Amino acid sequence: MRSSFGRVFSISTFGESHGKGLGVIIDGCPAGVTIDEDFIRQELQRRKPGQSKITTQRKEEDEFQILSGVFEGKSTGTPISIIILNTDQKSKDYSHIADKFRPSHADYTYHQKYGIRDYRGGGRSSARETAARVAAGAVAKLFLKEFGVHIQAYVSQAGDIRLEKDYKKLDLTQTENNIVRCPDAEVAEQMIAYIDEVRKDRDTVGGVVSCVASGVPVGLGEPVFDRLHAALGHAMLSINAVKGFEYGSGFGGVSMRGSQHNDAFYKEGDRIRTRTNYSGGIQGGISNGEDIYFRVAFKPVATIMQDQESVNEAGDAATVSGKGRHDPCVVPRAVPIVEAMAALVLADFLLLNRLSKV
Amino acid sequence: MRSSFGRVFSISTFGESHGKGLGVIIDGCPAGVTIDEDFIRQELQRRKPGQSKITTQRKEEDEFQILSGVFEGKSTGTPISIIILNTDQKSKDYSHIADKFRPSHADYTYHQKYGIRDYRGGGRSSARETAARVAAGAVAKLFLKEFGVHIQAYVSQAGDIRLEKDYKKLDLTQTENNIVRCPDAEVAEQMIAYIDEVRKDRDTVGGVVSCVASGVPVGLGEPVFDRLHAALGHAMLSINAVKGFEYGSGFGGVSMRGSQHNDAFYKEGDRIRTRTNYSGGIQGGISNGEDIYFRVAFKPVATIMQDQESVNEAGDAATVSGKGRHDPCVVPRAVPIVEAMAALVLADFLLLNRLSKV
Amino acid sequence: MRSSFGRVFSISTFGESHGKGLGVIIDGCPAGVTIDEDFIRQELQRRKPGQSKITTQRKEEDEFQILSGVFEGKSTGTPISIIILNTDQKSKDYSHIADKFRPSHADYTYHQKYGIRDYRGGGRSSARETAARVAAGAVAKLFLKEFGVHIQAYVSQAGDIRLEKDYKKLDLTQTENNIVRCPDAEVAEQMIAYIDEVRKDRDTVGGVVSCVASGVPVGLGEPVFDRLHAALGHAMLSINAVKGFEYGSGFGGVSMRGSQHNDAFYKEGDRIRTRTNYSGGIQGGISNGEDIYFRVAFKPVATIMQDQESVNEAGDAATVSGKGRHDPCVVPRAVPIVEAMAALVLADFLLLNRLSKV
Amino acid sequence: MRSSFGRVFSISTFGESHGKGLGVIIDGCPAGVTIDEDFIRQELQRRKPGQSKITTQRKEEDEFQILSGVFEGKSTGTPISIIILNTDQKSKDYSHIADKFRPSHADYTYHQKYGIRDYRGGGRSSARETAARVAAGAVAKLFLKEFGVHIQAYVSQAGDIRLEKDYKKLDLTQTENNIVRCPDAEVAEQMIAYIDEVRKDRDTVGGVVSCVASGVPVGLGEPVFDRLHAALGHAMLSINAVKGFEYGSGFGGVSMRGSQHNDAFYKEGDRIRTRTNYSGGIQGGISNGEDIYFRVAFKPVATIMQDQESVNEAGDAATVSGKGRHDPCVVPRAVPIVEAMAALVLADFLLLNRLSKV
Repeated sequence: MRSSFGRVFSISTFGESHGKGLGVIIDGCPAGVTIDEDFIRQELQRRKPGQSKITTQRKEEDEFQILSGVFEGKSTGTPISIIILNTDQKSKDYSHIADKFRPSHADYTYHQKYGIRDYRGGGRSSARETAARVAAGAVAKLFLKEFGVHIQAYVSQAGDIRLEKDYKKLDLTQTENNIVRCPDAEVAEQMIAYIDEVRKDRDTVGGVVSCVASGVPVGLGEPVFDRLHAALGHAMLSINAVKGFEYGSGFGGVSMRGSQHNDAFYKEGDRIRTRTNYSGGIQGGISNGEDIYFRVAFKPVATIMQDQESVNEAGDAATVSGKGRHDPCVVPRAVPIVEAMAALVLADFLLLNRLSKV
Repeated sequence: MRSSFGRVFSISTFGESHGKGLGVIIDGCPAGVTIDEDFIRQELQRRKPGQSKITTQRKEEDEFQILSGVFEGKSTGTPISIIILNTDQKSKDYSHIADKFRPSHADYTYHQKYGIRDYRGGGRSSARETAARVAAGAVAKLFLKEFGVHIQAYVSQAGDIRLEKDYKKLDLTQTENNIVRCPDAEVAEQMIAYIDEVRKDRDTVGGVVSCVASGVPVGLGEPVFDRLHAALGHAMLSINAVKGFEYGSGFGGVSMRGSQHNDAFYKEGDRIRTRTNYSGGIQGGISNGEDIYFRVAFKPVATIMQDQESVNEAGDAATVSGKGRHDPCVVPRAVPIVEAMAALVLADFLLLNRLSKV
Repeated sequence: MRSSFGRVFSISTFGESHGKGLGVIIDGCPAGVTIDEDFIRQELQRRKPGQSKITTQRKEEDEFQILSGVFEGKSTGTPISIIILNTDQKSKDYSHIADKFRPSHADYTYHQKYGIRDYRGGGRSSARETAARVAAGAVAKLFLKEFGVHIQAYVSQAGDIRLEKDYKKLDLTQTENNIVRCPDAEVAEQMIAYIDEVRKDRDTVGGVVSCVASGVPVGLGEPVFDRLHAALGHAMLSINAVKGFEYGSGFGGVSMRGSQHNDAFYKEGDRIRTRTNYSGGIQGGISNGEDIYFRVAFKPVATIMQDQESVNEAGDAATVSGKGRHDPCVVPRAVPIVEAMAALVLADFLLLNRLSKV
Repeated sequence: MRSSFGRVFSISTFGESHGKGLGVIIDGCPAGVTIDEDFIRQELQRRKPGQSKITTQRKEEDEFQILSGVFEGKSTGTPISIIILNTDQKSKDYSHIADKFRPSHADYTYHQKYGIRDYRGGGRSSARETAARVAAGAVAKLFLKEFGVHIQAYVSQAGDIRLEKDYKKLDLTQTENNIVRCPDAEVAEQMIAYIDEVRKDRDTVGGVVSCVASGVPVGLGEPVFDRLHAALGHAMLSINAVKGFEYGSGFGGVSMRGSQHNDAFYKEGDRIRTRTNYSGGIQGGISNGEDIYFRVAFKPVATIMQDQESVNEAGDAATVSGKGRHDPCVVPRAVPIVEAMAALVLADFLLLNRLSKV
């Protein structure tokens, strides 16, 4: 239960960065969804390391196999299992980090919690685990497509470079046109230059991913603990390096007055709509048919190419040296992960909503 | 399952604002916890309406009864049920709102989701539901007390009035000394004045509640989907009117560089500690023994004392008029709710952590 | 989680026999079900002590209150909470059993598991807990009624007195016409005489309850772990005093050959049916549209009116004396409990089945 | 969630008989368990087809791989994933059964539930799925071994040939000494002869597997819905072809009187024990330290080598012909499956019991 997510469209991921492989079981995808393997592959490409100069140059082959749950191109209603074998498991020399705790990584806390850890990588806390989520998210997207739901995330901040424009004034289809995944070409250029500078400093920086889900039917979300935004927040906060989540007006809405912030209802054709959308498409925890909009804050990547003060397992002072190939900024590759987790939440709640009425 | 929260120290709440009563079942509280009814009462007092001039003047008696799970002052390991009867169920005239959707409330989404709703109040989305959470949170606090865990929340922003100081420079024991629950007396005065002004304008305003949990043992949290901060985020985002959650460096950490943001390890006596705490006490989703620190954004209360544009169930334009007695700003009363939800999460993960090692 | 049952139409019960009260939360009943309080009352009457000379003469008032989840006679989709207060909590003298373990009761195991127990009664293991199940089961029956599903249980064995006839040859509508709830009047007479004899011997005896669910749509049940009969078995085995469960051909089917036991398919009008029903209406864990049929074995009630060898908490030998008023045979009152649990399982799986196809 | 089993030591299985492979994720196995791959292999051998003349002669290679969760021979506390690839996926001609429903199989119910099915085999209802359970059960056994818990199942009935002796009078270590897995050599011979005769008749027959768990600590089981025997019953009833479950005195206990059936307590050394064990080691749903004892009824295998009346997807009459290689009696191979499921339940409840007391 502890490595699974979702109530009825649920996933369980498994695998470490340095074991034989990793993967995911999707349990609860209804029968009859067209499973397009090319689409899954394409989504994995968006997350893959080595895709541009501002991501890690590490090479990982993310060749996946679907072991079960699909027959003649359609989901059968039984668990869909997807595995990605780790092709590169050379026995490198890990002695320089085997007993040291890397600052702001999970090394120390895992060691304390389990009394044992695979020191060759981040274990379950490795970002490699997110490949399994992206694969599962692709299946969720294929399911949602049948209902006209579309999800698009993009980078809205890298370090101090901010995309100030409201998402409604952006052309989100431009997102994939640059390596930082910012739909505004000009701001994208600034972000790329900045991240590249940080990389040359052997340092890292944080960023913000914004996400919009359109076409979401009214009624998704449960009234109390599983409000739609609470599940979305849970999903986003479960992604590596995430430090914050806000939806609709978010932290900025705090300073507003109710008379400004309330979204007036009106009728447009057959549909009841709201004039503004400070609610971010969710009222009382339930989708109201407007665009769902939220933002996710990522901290600077903890692995830096610099010496850092730390301790070893014995508690003695020790220096952790910067080595290897890592991302100077995680947000360009985080875009498909945010979308994947959003798709999983929406698929889950879309199904759950079938249970609301007799 | 849909009105429950928690994996092993779990709660289920029930009840609407205008039914016969509400309550909570706490399932999973271990046997042997001293259940101090006075403490539960005291916590409920902190949440209660009518406690000061800046909260709603509505009167609610929150007299609770423990029906089960406690014997001779100790928990027995069986479900603890707590009920709060609604004493005041006069048949008022609700005809003026019965078929209208109040802006930025859950009226419209409930109506669409269920096809039926109790128009006399907010139903399950009523803030009254949080009384059940505070009662359950009090039991969780009593459990946590046995392990030396202490939780303290406070108001750090009301509208634009901000308490800028880091929590380490504040005396949190002062929090209950003023009606806005801000530990800095001077800033508290400004907040109170501002909220009172907003109230006189027949309007509302948002705020931020900050929360610190100290004494949390190392090891709480699950590696992937149920990271400690993801569960805390889920819990906080499930509270009425919450729009955002951040922990540690939060959204502000985005602009930092890894070399600044990483928390260096060192040894202090027998304990491994971190020099800074941008991690907010959680690394890789697991508590590291430092203070857990997070912030929760609340929107302005949706009920305002002004006329608002809306539609009715038929979709015709309709005016919703301001009536009744409501909070101009929700954060003073939200402080115990934030603490309660934090206590429930920590109790749950403290128990779950007993399952980590053979 | 541990006092709850069901995936999506789920219940949580609470309360001890000697506390202030007990009850149940039904979480997941869809909106729009007509909630007939008289029907709930009537179901509780069928389970009530003191209803005839062959049940315990103890008096319990099972006056229930619905606190939430129902508005204007319909379920609203929010948790339905039902409480039954214990009216009679006189402080009797329990010193004669306070520290003794009654044989074949839960006293010893509770004491060991929790280190504390309410010695005034069976705590959660008291049969009184089943009142909450019957109330919840009545709601499940009202839900199932909307889909034409009907459940009827009856007593098919009491001690060695057996009702040998196949259920298809019985008129199940006669079940409530006698106090033992056996649809064959002649066998019923024998059972009643036998139970009465056992009662006079200050002893107890076991029995079997059979149950038939008709009108169940094809498709209920999940393929692997949550096969429909596995969930039914779980439900039945969770009832006090149950020692065994079998469905369709059951233990008797063991001696049959495949060529006899297989249920041949044929078409009857528009419907695909089976010529025999050794499958008990369930194939591959999924309902096939035929009657669901199962049998539940109950042991003799553990409380007898005789002295018994035992030990006390200190481990010293002690005699437990027979006192009070108890059932000589549990099955007449178990009939509505079996039906209630069956209704809860079927309601749950009927909803879950909405998730099978895109 | 629907292909998973267990609360905290939980498993999720995936895979069909004719897809690329199958497997299991074990989520919740604590860190530090010695994972002996040879033992897992040995358990899989016990379940494997083709092991003797009374099992199917079909060949399946059950070569498994552990992809994750184990490091240097120890569990790490993260999900343990085990996969078994299907080596033999030749595209045979399935046209003769593609649109026909085999009697007493899951073909019809799957078809109705999902609207799609992999007609090349039983899909998820294939007995091949149980290989994944046996692998997971082996891990559970390794965990239980650390606490001195031992589980032994054996065949106690095949068709009408019964092993009448009480398990206490048997030498269970003899179970693996014959191909039918009956610990009494003489009865084993009769069973083997009988099954072989049935096989020659191109028919099948049912059987009973009995199981004993010794060394189980006091306290496992939850009081109400998750009584230990209810979870065991659920587990057993989820195995293919199972029709019934009973524990302790079972269906036979029905005819006993309370005065005979109650298990008197006495003290033996430091331990409180019971003189008889009609309770089957479980009282009030919680283990009492005595041997846990239960019996599981299996129906005759549905696949027979004879022509059978049926219908096709269009509802037209059709003959299903006997073809292929199948087990004449499932119980010899079911013994390790029963043990595996029992081990999973006990591992789960052993962990859950750590949550009982403060």
